[in-house]
Amino acid sequence: MPEKQYLVTPGPTPVPPEVLAAMAKPIIHHRTPQFRALLERLYARLPRIFQTGNDVALLTCAGTGAMESAVANLCSPGDPVLVVAAGFFGERWAAIAEGYGCDVDLIRYEWGETASADDVASRLDERDAKVVFLTHSETSTGVVHDVRELAERCTGAGALVVVDAISSLGAIPLETDAWGLDVVLTSSHKALMCPPGLALASVSNAALEATSRATSPRFYLDWRRTLEAQRKRPPDSAFSPGISLIVGLDAATEILVDEGLEAAYERHRLLGRACRAGVRAMGLELFSPDEDRSAVVTAIRTPPDLDSGEIVLAMRERSGVTIIGGQGELRGKIVRIGHIGYIDVHDVATALSALELALVEAGADVDRGAAVPAALDAYGDGVPV
Amino acid sequence: MPEKQYLVTPGPTPVPPEVLAAMAKPIIHHRTPQFRALLERLYARLPRIFQTGNDVALLTCAGTGAMESAVANLCSPGDPVLVVAAGFFGERWAAIAEGYGCDVDLIRYEWGETASADDVASRLDERDAKVVFLTHSETSTGVVHDVRELAERCTGAGALVVVDAISSLGAIPLETDAWGLDVVLTSSHKALMCPPGLALASVSNAALEATSRATSPRFYLDWRRTLEAQRKRPPDSAFSPGISLIVGLDAATEILVDEGLEAAYERHRLLGRACRAGVRAMGLELFSPDEDRSAVVTAIRTPPDLDSGEIVLAMRERSGVTIIGGQGELRGKIVRIGHIGYIDVHDVATALSALELALVEAGADVDRGAAVPAALDAYGDGVPV
Repeated sequence: MPEKQYLVTPGPTPVPPEVLAAMAKPIIHHRTPQFRALLERLYARLPRIFQTGNDVALLTCAGTGAMESAVANLCSPGDPVLVVAAGFFGERWAAIAEGYGCDVDLIRYEWGETASADDVASRLDERDAKVVFLTHSETSTGVVHDVRELAERCTGAGALVVVDAISSLGAIPLETDAWGLDVVLTSSHKALMCPPGLALASVSNAALEATSRATSPRFYLDWRRTLEAQRKRPPDSAFSPGISLIVGLDAATEILVDEGLEAAYERHRLLGRACRAGVRAMGLELFSPDEDRSAVVTAIRTPPDLDSGEIVLAMRERSGVTIIGGQGELRGKIVRIGHIGYIDVHDVATALSALELALVEAGADVDRGAAVPAALDAYGDGVPV
Repeated sequence: MPEKQYLVTPGPTPVPPEVLAAMAKPIIHHRTPQFRALLERLYARLPRIFQTGNDVALLTCAGTGAMESAVANLCSPGDPVLVVAAGFFGERWAAIAEGYGCDVDLIRYEWGETASADDVASRLDERDAKVVFLTHSETSTGVVHDVRELAERCTGAGALVVVDAISSLGAIPLETDAWGLDVVLTSSHKALMCPPGLALASVSNAALEATSRATSPRFYLDWRRTLEAQRKRPPDSAFSPGISLIVGLDAATEILVDEGLEAAYERHRLLGRACRAGVRAMGLELFSPDEDRSAVVTAIRTPPDLDSGEIVLAMRERSGVTIIGGQGELRGKIVRIGHIGYIDVHDVATALSALELALVEAGADVDRGAAVPAALDAYGDGVPV
């Protein structure tokens, strides 16, 4: 028998069997009444998940493609923009914006730090920005930013606010309209429980107006082309869409709205608590903040004499459990357990017990057997249905 | 029981059950030894299908994204380029290149015409072009261009040659290196028998050198970023790749190389013959050329008093058979039967008999019962295994 695999990473995340089954049906053409009816239903459901009255553009690409779409659709060469970066993905904003010739002001925090709204406000006092690029959940560090507070300072300064919510949307609270977020991005393979290959961008009217003045070239990632097709009745697709993935996204988002956004947020909050409680009980040091908001990915410092990448490999070989190590400057120093999407507390417990086993076998000094009970106790009865 | 569906379009094309089954397995992380081993195998197999020694960049996007990647990676604003367009997709080259600020020279043929190598040569005599953008199979009309001959004139004039082989690669002969093609593009949902969402671009050394001088902004579609990750051993992905689609592409391309490229070309040649023979037997007029090269999609004029879009709808409602109508200026005037990928002659016969039925019920004067035998006879014994 092939070894059983357990996936506990912040993306890709496990795909529910109902979603896999929906995607395994024979493919249908995208210009049929059947697919257009699916699109109409999906296009109506997506804004509820974004908590917005804006349209949500559906792109067939990875999350990075959606990030690039924000720069390409909103910016012209020379535009002053502000990037707030506290990790790998925040810095990706700067790389893309610089590639498009923007005049990039960068507030760069150490990886693991949390951006401060006061820093953003004072930077915007010094220099106007047309667009501010933020990261909601910085997947490389486990930090979740207070986007509501950050955005408030940006809109106060007259800037458009773009938020990378790739690993957070659907897992933790994010209110696009109430928080004044012009553009919110996510992708299919995080809390939306699908394979990678689709990205979503909610676009405010102000952002849509800005696209008409932005001179950066774009065609495939052009929001107006995409939204024009989506707004037809029945809806259309500007280009060949990722049909099977969209069928999956329809099934997965139906599961999410059936659970209810508030219940999903609460489940993720408890999963984060469970994971942190287990880590602490094992005697390990948390790298990500020990706070409820940090409910996407838990980053854990590995003992200094061990390479965290080796621990990840050992877990996979020994137990069939996949978590991930550190990116960039955190390579070798941390491991990360993802707990978003189709995840219950016993998945977190499995990740913790396999981590514990790998550490013990590598000679680390951890308390055996403490993590799982601590995690289960912290989770408690879970979310009342 | 839900009505049985038959998909006979030039993309998406039917996905073999083995491929659907492979994609329906639990998702694996892209940075695992299992997925890297799959990538290594796939990256070695793809150049064989392109008949090239060049690397083939794997992008998670639609074919149009790959077309844009060619413009963005090769061109700077103001660059003189030549677009040869004889239909919807040829004209898309011009739209993208103009969007990137290229100085576009356009040879525009009437839709349904076939581009001439002499026209290309004389245009390049008049004005140099850095890049020439060609279309192998013009899916909107059914015309397949003699890319070998067209390319010869372009390389003779010192231009880079970029070929949209989106609906042709794997179905009809295309020899990237022998024909001197710098960049050849395709996507997953045509003759490669997968759902849409992946695109491929083979990139010659000359094209790769040109990327270092091209100033157009690009990040997600950047070939060097993509190829740098692919060339690592074990290989990596620059961004979250379309994992499930790539698992499908691995399974589907294995089927294709097991069949053998020459056998696949012969099968498609016979399928094209069968389809055209059926159309003629029915007494309808071919819009696409009646020649063996036209083996991707057969375009058929519908009787002038009927709207071809209505015929397509009627076929779907009456018989569950999906073919497609005309695009752009051919809307309402033609129907198109696709015969690429996971298609055997009885799929073509099904499309023909459902078309015949829809036409008869719409009051058209067609010979009933003649098309299917003619198609089967033209196919003969098919491809010897």
